[in-house]
Amino acid sequence: MNASDFRRRGKEMVDYMADYLEGIEGRQVYPDVQPGYLRPLIPATAPQEPDTFEDILQDVEKIIMPGVTHWHSPYFFAYFPTASSYPAMLADMLCGAIGCIGFSWAASPACTELETVMMDWLGKMLQLPEAFLAGEAGEGGGVIQGSASEATLVALLAARTKVTRRLQAASPGLTQGAVLEKLVAYASDQAHSSVERAGLIGGVKLKAIPSDGKFAMRASALQEALERDKAAGLIPFFVVATLGTTSCCSFDNLLEVGPICHEEDIWLHVDAAYAGSAFICPEFRHLLNGVEFADSFNFNPHKWLLVNFDCSAMWVKRRTDLTGAFKLDPVYLKHSHQGSGLITDYRHWQLPLGRRFRSLKMWFVFRMYGVKGLQAYIRKHVQLSHEFEAFVLQDPRFEVCAEVTLGLVCFRLKGSDGLNEALLERINSARKIHLVPCRLRGQFVLRFAICSRKVESGHVRLAWEHIRGLAAELLAAEEGKRDGQSCII
Amino acid sequence: MNASDFRRRGKEMVDYMADYLEGIEGRQVYPDVQPGYLRPLIPATAPQEPDTFEDILQDVEKIIMPGVTHWHSPYFFAYFPTASSYPAMLADMLCGAIGCIGFSWAASPACTELETVMMDWLGKMLQLPEAFLAGEAGEGGGVIQGSASEATLVALLAARTKVTRRLQAASPGLTQGAVLEKLVAYASDQAHSSVERAGLIGGVKLKAIPSDGKFAMRASALQEALERDKAAGLIPFFVVATLGTTSCCSFDNLLEVGPICHEEDIWLHVDAAYAGSAFICPEFRHLLNGVEFADSFNFNPHKWLLVNFDCSAMWVKRRTDLTGAFKLDPVYLKHSHQGSGLITDYRHWQLPLGRRFRSLKMWFVFRMYGVKGLQAYIRKHVQLSHEFEAFVLQDPRFEVCAEVTLGLVCFRLKGSDGLNEALLERINSARKIHLVPCRLRGQFVLRFAICSRKVESGHVRLAWEHIRGLAAELLAAEEGKRDGQSCII
Repeated sequence: MNASDFRRRGKEMVDYMADYLEGIEGRQVYPDVQPGYLRPLIPATAPQEPDTFEDILQDVEKIIMPGVTHWHSPYFFAYFPTASSYPAMLADMLCGAIGCIGFSWAASPACTELETVMMDWLGKMLQLPEAFLAGEAGEGGGVIQGSASEATLVALLAARTKVTRRLQAASPGLTQGAVLEKLVAYASDQAHSSVERAGLIGGVKLKAIPSDGKFAMRASALQEALERDKAAGLIPFFVVATLGTTSCCSFDNLLEVGPICHEEDIWLHVDAAYAGSAFICPEFRHLLNGVEFADSFNFNPHKWLLVNFDCSAMWVKRRTDLTGAFKLDPVYLKHSHQGSGLITDYRHWQLPLGRRFRSLKMWFVFRMYGVKGLQAYIRKHVQLSHEFEAFVLQDPRFEVCAEVTLGLVCFRLKGSDGLNEALLERINSARKIHLVPCRLRGQFVLRFAICSRKVESGHVRLAWEHIRGLAAELLAAEEGKRDGQSCII
Repeated sequence: MNASDFRRRGKEMVDYMADYLEGIEGRQVYPDVQPGYLRPLIPATAPQEPDTFEDILQDVEKIIMPGVTHWHSPYFFAYFPTASSYPAMLADMLCGAIGCIGFSWAASPACTELETVMMDWLGKMLQLPEAFLAGEAGEGGGVIQGSASEATLVALLAARTKVTRRLQAASPGLTQGAVLEKLVAYASDQAHSSVERAGLIGGVKLKAIPSDGKFAMRASALQEALERDKAAGLIPFFVVATLGTTSCCSFDNLLEVGPICHEEDIWLHVDAAYAGSAFICPEFRHLLNGVEFADSFNFNPHKWLLVNFDCSAMWVKRRTDLTGAFKLDPVYLKHSHQGSGLITDYRHWQLPLGRRFRSLKMWFVFRMYGVKGLQAYIRKHVQLSHEFEAFVLQDPRFEVCAEVTLGLVCFRLKGSDGLNEALLERINSARKIHLVPCRLRGQFVLRFAICSRKVESGHVRLAWEHIRGLAAELLAAEEGKRDGQSCII
């Protein structure tokens, strides 16, 4: 395929992309396929001779699309949103053409420098404390990670290195194994599974702090765990506070947890993967209060800030905490500006070596929406979730299971888990909308997350009417079963 | 920006991409900018109101391009290649529009299933042993990781979990810290820095095995290290063998190292990040002999197989080794097919949770080039490196420093490190071509890597004439200095 073929096919693909996204409402949100559906549809080996582009594009419709869960359908209310916007797609196209690998400043200076400045732009939108910004000559700064999982792991590893060096300086001869044995990390029982995984990978204990009635980590429970563990000779070194948990979008109490971590010299990592985008709106910024106590902070613009996956924004107060944990300098990656103190080699900030020019997506999105456009987008989603909440509250058969703060409503039928599992089964089998469940206080709960860039009040209303209808059928069937049973008895 | 704006701007962007790549030879391969160049060129904060697309595209030329190292210029001979092809860019555009996050089968069945089948296609192209393929119901299989660094780390963590469970089963009460204290991983002294990093992250010792005269890890040196460490009470558990090292593209002796690992029950991970792509050519396949002893194997189609970054292909013989190391199952990620044994939830195979639909890139590239087209591409690069090697060998002032097997030539001026450092400085300052150095046997060496999809014999010849010319100038200047000195004396 030469450049002129690409000009032609690329433009066809642009139309296909626009057609797909404009017409997505007409596609069934969740596919009908069964596991293993795809293998029989395509050859067992790659072709020896080239196929035509027409064949491939036809196969996209015939083979791929029937197996796609359409995350950008306005009837997709599952998980959390994943971002999709035209400016981000344009930037990603450019990123693909430039195709540089920005592991060091020299490997492509623009790639590194735009990232540093975009992370400052975003930090300012969030009103992050100045200590997190790279500014002209600050000690902090931001980096784009691939995912919140990686950000949590990177923070945990940096904290582990820091505490290990401190302990080894105090007790020379102390081995790393002996240190790891004593280290304890903490997160609320509502924290994302990736936090537990970071503990597993880092080889340290991770303890779950029981959350309070509003699913928040509070001072007393954390303090209690710290005292107990310290008395047992363990060394608390890392706390993850979550702002906007995955199950129900609850918020750990940063203003309580932060001072404790500060007092105890424990690394505080704040994970706001989903909720973080909302903090660009002044009316939601208070949810971030206490971030000044954090050592590292992370959220995913690729969730809710219209920057297509992957773009996970992470800031640290002291860059040297990250680079100190990872830095290795082979000759083939050395360059002449390395020692100047002016430049950033992002490979020391992350797990992989290679990295794409992802800041282009931030630049395009921030400029083409403007801060006001981004704020309006967040506000619209929050409003839609309150519309759904109001529907649930109006129906006495249902209950809302957690406070609705941003774009997520947790709800259930008043009744057994079995009843709610049956309702979810009916909802997802009907294929009109797509939801996933969670557990809160041991109960099976349905999550309704506002996800799509194209979702409007009408879709939310239709979704609710659909759910109500299925619930009515289900309750009638249950009623029937009970009547049937009483006849038999 | 609505769909019709995107149709217009997307098509402009397609032309910009084609223009950029077609005209790349006319751009200076390495930029003139100094650290910190970008910040003064753009505002300190994001705009409140939207900017226009015209402004942004102008700024790309004005602000970004002057700071880009053009990895796809035919005058870029630095590091290793990073892939760039039009079919991969088309697939990435489609991936951006679909925008699904394929962490589980249910999150988008097509995303998971195409990946499994593409990894089988690629495995068959490489003639990997059947045990690495997912096939209909095999125990092995492939996964796309983001980078070779992640693949190495994932393999090390899986091996760590496996040996820890075995030791704890044999000695209940043995703590993880006590196990970590004893575990040792090994790699050649030529292995990539990411291997050392994986050891750091995993909290285990990593020992460098001295390579032989051809920069290869051999049986005797490995065996010696294993015996010494076992005698000291340590537990060898993980070996990384490299096929195509970063410094000089040397090959560890798999046929020697493999049986030792097998005998000693040590996990063998084979890292062929760069060289792996060449194994699709029958004449290079012998370099992979011995992979049948490996537990995991990885290479980067995003380096040399025309699949744009990121796409790092990893296979394991037993899927359960990976999933066993990472599996955590929160309710919000459960789905009804999970227990069926038929499906793959790739989130258990990797560090991050989220993942893009990267197998589309493989599908488009493999189909639009065909295996023969891909083989021709590899062969051309290998031929070009031999052309450069021949130039070096013809000039008695220069020497080739390592065997040229694939697309990399390591060379230097016969003389001091200082002389060669000065030569590289002149080469990179002239900005006509771009190279990076390495160290071999303690000596400073220049690396000439065939990188660009568009590099031809003419570029290689021009590059060599340029290098020769600069070397002649340098040698004359040195001569002059010596003459000057002798006058003074």
